[in-house]
Amino acid sequence: MTDIIHPLILCGGSGTRLWPLSRKSYPKQFARITGAQSLFQASALRLSGVEFAPPMIATGADFRFIVTEQLAACEIAPAAVLIEPEGRNTAPAILAAALILQEQHPGALMLAAPSDHVISDTNAFRATVQAAIPAARSGDLITFGIRPDRAETGYGWLELTAALGAGDAPVPQPLKRFVEKPDATTAQAMLDGGRHLWNAGIFLFSTEALIAAFAQHQPEMLATTRNAVSTATRDLGFTRLDPAAWGQLEDISIDYAVMEKAEQISVVPYSGGWSDLGGWEAVWRHGGPDADGIVTHGPTTAIDCTNTLLRAESADQQLVGIGLEDIIAIAMPDAVLVAHKDRAQDVRLAVQHLKDAGVAQAETLPRDYRPWGWYESLVVGPRFQVKRIVVRPGAALSLQSHHHRAEHWVVVAGTAKVTIDDHVQLITENQSVYIPLGAVHRMENPGKLPLTLIEVQTGAYLSEDDIIRYDDVYARERTPKT
Amino acid sequence: MTDIIHPLILCGGSGTRLWPLSRKSYPKQFARITGAQSLFQASALRLSGVEFAPPMIATGADFRFIVTEQLAACEIAPAAVLIEPEGRNTAPAILAAALILQEQHPGALMLAAPSDHVISDTNAFRATVQAAIPAARSGDLITFGIRPDRAETGYGWLELTAALGAGDAPVPQPLKRFVEKPDATTAQAMLDGGRHLWNAGIFLFSTEALIAAFAQHQPEMLATTRNAVSTATRDLGFTRLDPAAWGQLEDISIDYAVMEKAEQISVVPYSGGWSDLGGWEAVWRHGGPDADGIVTHGPTTAIDCTNTLLRAESADQQLVGIGLEDIIAIAMPDAVLVAHKDRAQDVRLAVQHLKDAGVAQAETLPRDYRPWGWYESLVVGPRFQVKRIVVRPGAALSLQSHHHRAEHWVVVAGTAKVTIDDHVQLITENQSVYIPLGAVHRMENPGKLPLTLIEVQTGAYLSEDDIIRYDDVYARERTPKT
Repeated sequence: MTDIIHPLILCGGSGTRLWPLSRKSYPKQFARITGAQSLFQASALRLSGVEFAPPMIATGADFRFIVTEQLAACEIAPAAVLIEPEGRNTAPAILAAALILQEQHPGALMLAAPSDHVISDTNAFRATVQAAIPAARSGDLITFGIRPDRAETGYGWLELTAALGAGDAPVPQPLKRFVEKPDATTAQAMLDGGRHLWNAGIFLFSTEALIAAFAQHQPEMLATTRNAVSTATRDLGFTRLDPAAWGQLEDISIDYAVMEKAEQISVVPYSGGWSDLGGWEAVWRHGGPDADGIVTHGPTTAIDCTNTLLRAESADQQLVGIGLEDIIAIAMPDAVLVAHKDRAQDVRLAVQHLKDAGVAQAETLPRDYRPWGWYESLVVGPRFQVKRIVVRPGAALSLQSHHHRAEHWVVVAGTAKVTIDDHVQLITENQSVYIPLGAVHRMENPGKLPLTLIEVQTGAYLSEDDIIRYDDVYARERTPKT
Repeated sequence: MTDIIHPLILCGGSGTRLWPLSRKSYPKQFARITGAQSLFQASALRLSGVEFAPPMIATGADFRFIVTEQLAACEIAPAAVLIEPEGRNTAPAILAAALILQEQHPGALMLAAPSDHVISDTNAFRATVQAAIPAARSGDLITFGIRPDRAETGYGWLELTAALGAGDAPVPQPLKRFVEKPDATTAQAMLDGGRHLWNAGIFLFSTEALIAAFAQHQPEMLATTRNAVSTATRDLGFTRLDPAAWGQLEDISIDYAVMEKAEQISVVPYSGGWSDLGGWEAVWRHGGPDADGIVTHGPTTAIDCTNTLLRAESADQQLVGIGLEDIIAIAMPDAVLVAHKDRAQDVRLAVQHLKDAGVAQAETLPRDYRPWGWYESLVVGPRFQVKRIVVRPGAALSLQSHHHRAEHWVVVAGTAKVTIDDHVQLITENQSVYIPLGAVHRMENPGKLPLTLIEVQTGAYLSEDDIIRYDDVYARERTPKT
């Protein structure tokens, strides 16, 4: 019998190095960087199929509805969505998931993987995972090592006890040690020596072996994480780990917490394409530069450019580059980044600067994801604002009222069930309804298709905090911050 | 008595070198490049005041309502707005205006000036014009020459018979000859010699002297232009030169047509700041680079940049530059240009490429100016579109109907008089009205304030050409191209 593998997809991270596409409110793993799917969706699909059980997901509270929506879009039903009350790096999240899995499937094999990397060859990756099963079954903690093709200083490396042969067979190897991000000389020496691989942060283990390793090396973390799991609450399909216990946990990666200390550990080499897309320079390289070194995405025009990445993220925005060399240009309707390719990592400085200046684009996108769907502001004028609102089938906005604004809703797709004070009505495409100032109202999508409506707000004060909630199926606060 | 000067502001041009800010539908002279006013508005204001009569304007039919709106915004009532049926360069337009002015004010002094240049020191410019009056009154054709501060190859130059002194006094000088755009060596020699000025294309003359010069050097053009003027039609305050006569005119600048041939011509030097803003590199220079060579405009962030222009044209779009050197970056919500500064002139190649590809951004802006005001599309989705529409006080859209769409109008500012079939109603802020598919309808702004409404269109076909016009106060075609 083949062992089924339980994937754990880690998607709590929130980097700024791919700003403006990746923002705190909608980070890299959920963005469409390399194709029609987000990196998270691609990860979930890569870990789907006969050899995999439904995935567990570990994420932050802010991203739970993005996770739900993106999984639904690729028709994947997760086994569980764990909500980390705060980011605590990978060790606590992986341990919590292992404890939950161990209760349900004692001794199950778990594959823990980040969701913000790109792996080009799904079949090769799956074959590599399969090749690691016997060692994992025998109690090894397996880490996957990427065969390097350059002296990369941005990754951690794995040192083997002996050089790999030329063959690509994914045979488990003994690990000598983890190597921190190296300097250029060290990286070159490691590349030349053939005894080092990149650390991809992907792990395979049996839950028993992992829990045993934590018992040996991190007994306190194990006890606290058990607490966080045993007092977790289930809420709308999410498993919300206990915040009090979680708050006591150390912020530490699984490498530091147990992998570097464990005795029975091995490395399985992976030879297919891989990138952590750790910055725009990595996106450029992954994009496959043409003979002039040009990579483009979206409606772009490159004239006499070399070694340049041009990305227009919206179909409605044209990006033109002329005579550029070693330039990264990322265009979005609300924010544009132009950077020298060697300085692409410094986008974090710009994001910090914008954040300090109170600029919304530092951390948020125009489109705001909510439990019931999403909305975006189309135009803000004096005493009016126009929004596009999309409500998922079966979803409902809270029962609410506003002190300072009236609203017109025009349905342009689907059907809305609208409650205004005591009156309930269905309105459908090409119909509209008026919500007077002060009226208690609710919108629901009772149908099977997404509901799209245009909301025209009028009034003297149009901020999101003019909302009084009377009842909310998503248990949000009555007077929210946003 | 001081001679009053009649300004003629030329604003028919349509360049692409400042794309994406300047587009065929809304060219450079109407864009806000250097401040709160457009170059055209700044020109009109510079030529206002006690020493000037109300200006005459010469423009193309496509721009007539932009002219009207921009003049109204700076409270200038033009003496006449001449519509050139087709662009014929400066000679026919200046001559037509001179003929009209000569009828009304025989022997009047006219100052003909382009509207797409920037002149920093209004007082110095006006003093220079005043200093030229005696020579113009005595029958000279005056051209103004800009004292050069660099060996510019992008301009035509004026050669004097003797070197200018160091003083700044605007004393009329004899012109030896016009010099075509020079190569770099020639330009440097001219700069060093002190006998050459830049040709700004600004002229002062009495209408009698100018018409006499045309009679001598361009008798055929004079006769044809007289025809175009005598059969001009007046239409909504515009003087529409006769298209048949106009079509026979040569496309030629006033320099070539008469100035280079005329005998009684002199040059008045101008020492204040001037730029033709002939490309983004000129905009950068005019912007006053700081010690690092950085010029910014709008919400921009420059980190470790040198000799770089960063412009964000919308308050809602952030532009970030990191580690850039000699880069021009112009961000707009629908189009972004990033170019090496030495290649900024090649933006025309990009515009041509986009035009060939049928890309709207090549020539048009999201905001579309109409006789009655303007509109812009806020979002286009499947089977729906949302527009913001602004109607000027007293203006009316045509009586119309659509085969394929219904419309919801929500008024967010001002008051609309809405006719739907036989029913007329007033709707005001926070009210809405529904226009069923096929209904014959009209919108008017009967008030004293601009009317702003949000239009939500629904239907299977939403292009502008689904419009049947029954009656139009602006005499447009019943089934227009756009």
